[in-house]
Amino acid sequence: MRIEGVPASAGYAEGPLFDLGRPARVYASKASSVEERTSLEAAIGKAVNRLVDMVGTVEKDAAGILEFHIAMLEDDALSGPAFASISSGTPADAAWRQALDAEIAGYEASDQDYFRARATDLRDIRDQVLRALTEDGGITAPAGAILYGEDIAPTRFLETDWSHGGGIALKAGSTASHVAMLARSRGVPMVVGLREPLTAVTDMALLDAEHGNIVLAPSPAEIGSFRQSSSSFIAGQGKARTFLARPAVTKTGTAVRVQVNIADPRDVDTIDIATCDGVGLMRTEFLFGKTLPDEETQYRAYRKVLEWAGEKPVTIRTVDAGGDKPVPGFTVEEGNPFLGLRGIRLSLARPDIFRIQIRALLRAAPHGNLKIMFPMIATSAEYESAAALFAEERAALAARGIAQKMPPLGIMVEVPSVAIAPEAFTGVAFLSIGSNDLTQYVMAAARDNAAVAHLNSVRHPAVLRLIASVAAFGRETGIVVSLCGDAGGDPASIPSLLEAGLRDLSVAPAQLAMAKAAIADVPV
Amino acid sequence: MRIEGVPASAGYAEGPLFDLGRPARVYASKASSVEERTSLEAAIGKAVNRLVDMVGTVEKDAAGILEFHIAMLEDDALSGPAFASISSGTPADAAWRQALDAEIAGYEASDQDYFRARATDLRDIRDQVLRALTEDGGITAPAGAILYGEDIAPTRFLETDWSHGGGIALKAGSTASHVAMLARSRGVPMVVGLREPLTAVTDMALLDAEHGNIVLAPSPAEIGSFRQSSSSFIAGQGKARTFLARPAVTKTGTAVRVQVNIADPRDVDTIDIATCDGVGLMRTEFLFGKTLPDEETQYRAYRKVLEWAGEKPVTIRTVDAGGDKPVPGFTVEEGNPFLGLRGIRLSLARPDIFRIQIRALLRAAPHGNLKIMFPMIATSAEYESAAALFAEERAALAARGIAQKMPPLGIMVEVPSVAIAPEAFTGVAFLSIGSNDLTQYVMAAARDNAAVAHLNSVRHPAVLRLIASVAAFGRETGIVVSLCGDAGGDPASIPSLLEAGLRDLSVAPAQLAMAKAAIADVPV
Repeated sequence: MRIEGVPASAGYAEGPLFDLGRPARVYASKASSVEERTSLEAAIGKAVNRLVDMVGTVEKDAAGILEFHIAMLEDDALSGPAFASISSGTPADAAWRQALDAEIAGYEASDQDYFRARATDLRDIRDQVLRALTEDGGITAPAGAILYGEDIAPTRFLETDWSHGGGIALKAGSTASHVAMLARSRGVPMVVGLREPLTAVTDMALLDAEHGNIVLAPSPAEIGSFRQSSSSFIAGQGKARTFLARPAVTKTGTAVRVQVNIADPRDVDTIDIATCDGVGLMRTEFLFGKTLPDEETQYRAYRKVLEWAGEKPVTIRTVDAGGDKPVPGFTVEEGNPFLGLRGIRLSLARPDIFRIQIRALLRAAPHGNLKIMFPMIATSAEYESAAALFAEERAALAARGIAQKMPPLGIMVEVPSVAIAPEAFTGVAFLSIGSNDLTQYVMAAARDNAAVAHLNSVRHPAVLRLIASVAAFGRETGIVVSLCGDAGGDPASIPSLLEAGLRDLSVAPAQLAMAKAAIADVPV
Repeated sequence: MRIEGVPASAGYAEGPLFDLGRPARVYASKASSVEERTSLEAAIGKAVNRLVDMVGTVEKDAAGILEFHIAMLEDDALSGPAFASISSGTPADAAWRQALDAEIAGYEASDQDYFRARATDLRDIRDQVLRALTEDGGITAPAGAILYGEDIAPTRFLETDWSHGGGIALKAGSTASHVAMLARSRGVPMVVGLREPLTAVTDMALLDAEHGNIVLAPSPAEIGSFRQSSSSFIAGQGKARTFLARPAVTKTGTAVRVQVNIADPRDVDTIDIATCDGVGLMRTEFLFGKTLPDEETQYRAYRKVLEWAGEKPVTIRTVDAGGDKPVPGFTVEEGNPFLGLRGIRLSLARPDIFRIQIRALLRAAPHGNLKIMFPMIATSAEYESAAALFAEERAALAARGIAQKMPPLGIMVEVPSVAIAPEAFTGVAFLSIGSNDLTQYVMAAARDNAAVAHLNSVRHPAVLRLIASVAAFGRETGIVVSLCGDAGGDPASIPSLLEAGLRDLSVAPAQLAMAKAAIADVPV
């Protein structure tokens, strides 16, 4: 039996199925309420410890979620009713479940979005403690299993050992979710949006996350065909790797510049600079954690990447906080953060914070081939304000005799207004299309919302038309136009992007080989 | 002294200033903690009663906020700490303030958006009870006063008596806030975004909400000039009323169709159908309150408006739930609701609910000149799916011998993809540009977020370019293109819209006269 879905992270997995919704093992009741109390305390402690261990090993976004769960578990208000219930004779597991279910029901019934959102967190917390209450500390999936269910919590993904293979098959889910992003960066095959639930499950299944389907109880013929596809996928990856060291050219010999996107200076430790044309996007959000970074910390991070890249360009994006990237003490609470005070808007609203980053960038500039770009530009006035701050800080550094250099200043094209009316930006040094945000605004479909994922397509004619018109504007004015969204590294989108006139892509390091291989097949 | 700001609701007000942040009157302590307890109980009860009274008199959105406040006030968990503190000797006002401030501080310190958002509600609740605790039930502004401060709570606006004039002057605020919308619909002058706080305030001030400023301690010359502007504003409104009964034509004699937007069937009771060209937008969200409406309730509402309009067209928009219009049991919780499952997306995801509305519309169609439009269309596939449901339900009604009629089916143009690539929609009966949403997506600036209000302009070249290209598409294909966003009734935007090629606007009933007057000045 084959169930179709949507590929979220390409690859193949063959193995036993593991139900993400499987009830926890039966809890063994204790002899007295004192022991029950100790048992619940220990389980909460165990859950907290597991979360604390995880925090250190995961990405910043994931850590934020985990820290919130820890704070909730450590809040006596949450556990109080469960301990009260234990005192009157209820076993620890039932007491905890009842207390949390009552709390969850209250939140679920609320008219208020933020109460309902909290119910999801509470369910995750409830299950973490229930798993800790069973003797073995919870059921983990067998190595190489295909995890299936409605959706998967980020904590679940992070605690799973993927080193022996395995994959994920979800009824809901989104290709733009955090778990999907993690799966792609770790090479874990994942299919979302399965058309039917996996009810009559078998011990063995075939997950084809290249095309997006799962086969249950496969016939010998199906297994044979699956293994053939899997082999050629792996061979394709191997072949792609042969493209890695060569410059990218299309089938008809057109040169395409391929740079990499990096999110952290440590990323460059595993990239050979000879395999790419530079850094098309260096994010700086990694610096903005629990505390705001000082000038020296930023300067060192920028300088490290510049020195690694040598003469090749490094395009650093000024901090793009807000949206789905909150920063304590910097970003603000908003009803629609993707349409709010984010990117350059926030930097201009907080020049005290922005000027520190500007100084660090100006001081790093002499150490390499630095280019700067501003995120979320909507109007030329924003570009001019940001450029004026650079000029001011440069003059101030020069007056103090500090080494600095003014880098070329460009902008991201992700707000539709810029793509629709680019003529206001003839003064910028370069344009870099942010296809993820541009697509979500053109289609009015949030990139992280599974319910509208079917609308969020960079290959919709309206999105491609805007990309083509920005590319044409670049040719007319001589301003370089590149693209640094996920689409740039997606073999399925690369033909459309090159046909739209782009000759400059910036991709995730893991996609570099595949992107070059895909470019070689395009007849432009 | 003159302070500049942004006009949010045009008009003039002259009068004493009233500080919205003014501390409540001093609370008279009671002789015993029992009396203090009674005093706080009475104040909470008074606050609840005042909210309950208000719920019945306000718009649905405002009622939702008030009902949430009532639920919070009635929650013992909130008042418990205050009563405990009274038992140990604290006066009621201090006990309440401390208890609520502690609660608020906890929420404000949170990393989580939804906790921080709750702090705003708690502050409102805190102040409502503190006002109720003072003997006169709180300080109300004197009649005709200009209320000033950082921002104004919707409850405060709703409980103020505006029948003797007065106005609002805010340091923060947004022209797109609910209070600004209420102020415009009730004709209360309002200025937001004042560049400086009103610190050295005087007893007398002049609020010019036509141009957006406030003058403190005015000189006789300033008073004279203010009264002249005020008189000509009132005269202008009077003159505009003379345009009401005439068809709209531009300065050069071009006819412009002007229809009205209505949000509730009761709206038509105060509109003379002879003054407009029909209903360009009838919203149906009013029907979707705490419970989902049945077919009969919808049918009666639609039929009432159709019969009122006679032969003139009535364009009913299928339910546009989601975004900033949550409906219990229908919409879902989302991180970015403006980019989420809303409008036609939600209707197609819930055909059980959509089919009821479709049947009611098909049955109402024979009673007038009905047109149907779908909100938030992003792709032609969505239009085709919605049209197919209409065809299916029509066939089913016909098979049962029930009177029905298939109305022309059109779409809203508010998702940028439709405006950028309209050629996919040659099969629709008409196009209606929703300028509010189109603008917020093109500029990536939420319409209800003050922090990005400076970017949210329908007159940005990119927005006007899209409007002009949709108008051109309409001329080429013979498909009627109208516009039903707020811009259509804004005298400052009307010249740009007509220059972009539009000849068909739908405006709020209160704007009808001014819109026709503004059209008469445009030389197109």
